[in-house]
Amino acid sequence: MQLSKGIEWSAHILTVLALVPPGKGVSVDALADFFELPGAYLSKQMQLLRRAGIVESLRGKSGGYRLARNVDAITLLDIVRAIEGPMPAFRCTEIRQNGPCGLQREDCKRPCEVASAFAEAEDAYRAALSARTIASIMQDAASNASPAHLVDIANWVQRQLA
Amino acid sequence: MQLSKGIEWSAHILTVLALVPPGKGVSVDALADFFELPGAYLSKQMQLLRRAGIVESLRGKSGGYRLARNVDAITLLDIVRAIEGPMPAFRCTEIRQNGPCGLQREDCKRPCEVASAFAEAEDAYRAALSARTIASIMQDAASNASPAHLVDIANWVQRQLA
Repeated sequence: MQLSKGIEWSAHILTVLALVPPGKGVSVDALADFFELPGAYLSKQMQLLRRAGIVESLRGKSGGYRLARNVDAITLLDIVRAIEGPMPAFRCTEIRQNGPCGLQREDCKRPCEVASAFAEAEDAYRAALSARTIASIMQDAASNASPAHLVDIANWVQRQLA
Repeated sequence: MQLSKGIEWSAHILTVLALVPPGKGVSVDALADFFELPGAYLSKQMQLLRRAGIVESLRGKSGGYRLARNVDAITLLDIVRAIEGPMPAFRCTEIRQNGPCGLQREDCKRPCEVASAFAEAEDAYRAALSARTIASIMQDAASNASPAHLVDIANWVQRQLA
């Protein structure tokens, strides 16, 4: 079980897009350069974020991607769902209904006990991810970073808008 | 992100192997028939469980697989680790060190804030899975099942040992 690399990329990119002023955007190519990522694959991830309403794209001279909502309204769970889709990691195929001792379908209205246990664990995982916003990631990052590094990033963003 | 089907299969199969008496085993073919699973692929999953010390295999006339330890000492996390391996689902590739504003490696002794947040969520997931044993799954299943169904399963196991 492995999460798509697009999730790591997206979380980092959203912290950069948070610095883009109103009415402006940053191109996929610039974002790919900023993190040394493959442009074509990053472009697909950005389209998934756009479909999920996390970023929006502006056309024209100042075009590119920008956040579609506030950093405190974007959780890590939102990113996972945008990139991986809404399906759970554990997918019950109802094998209790198979074979010589298989249960009848009408006796399987309650979820299987194995599936229930995995669903509870995934609930705990999702709860932890939904408690972390891009705003909180940025706060933690800022408190661990040197002021000079933060200025570097802000200046880079400004240069992309020129 | 999707867990291997082998995890679902393993959890169910371990509840069946729990009914096997000392010194006996059940063949992969019989287990595959019991749940209508592909024998060759199931065989690989059983080997992973054996390598993890969850089941053991007996040779000879009464040969086959049996539990290598008690059902209350086998957690769902043990199964996930046996089948999927120990790697986390989120794998940080340190993209904060990339590009024009990349951090120096020596400034990255603390884990990245994004990686830390995902690690916390995976800790919650693993804690939930490690709290559930095959014994507890069997208790839940038995309390939801008809006594006749439990007798059917026990009789099927007995027939495999004959």
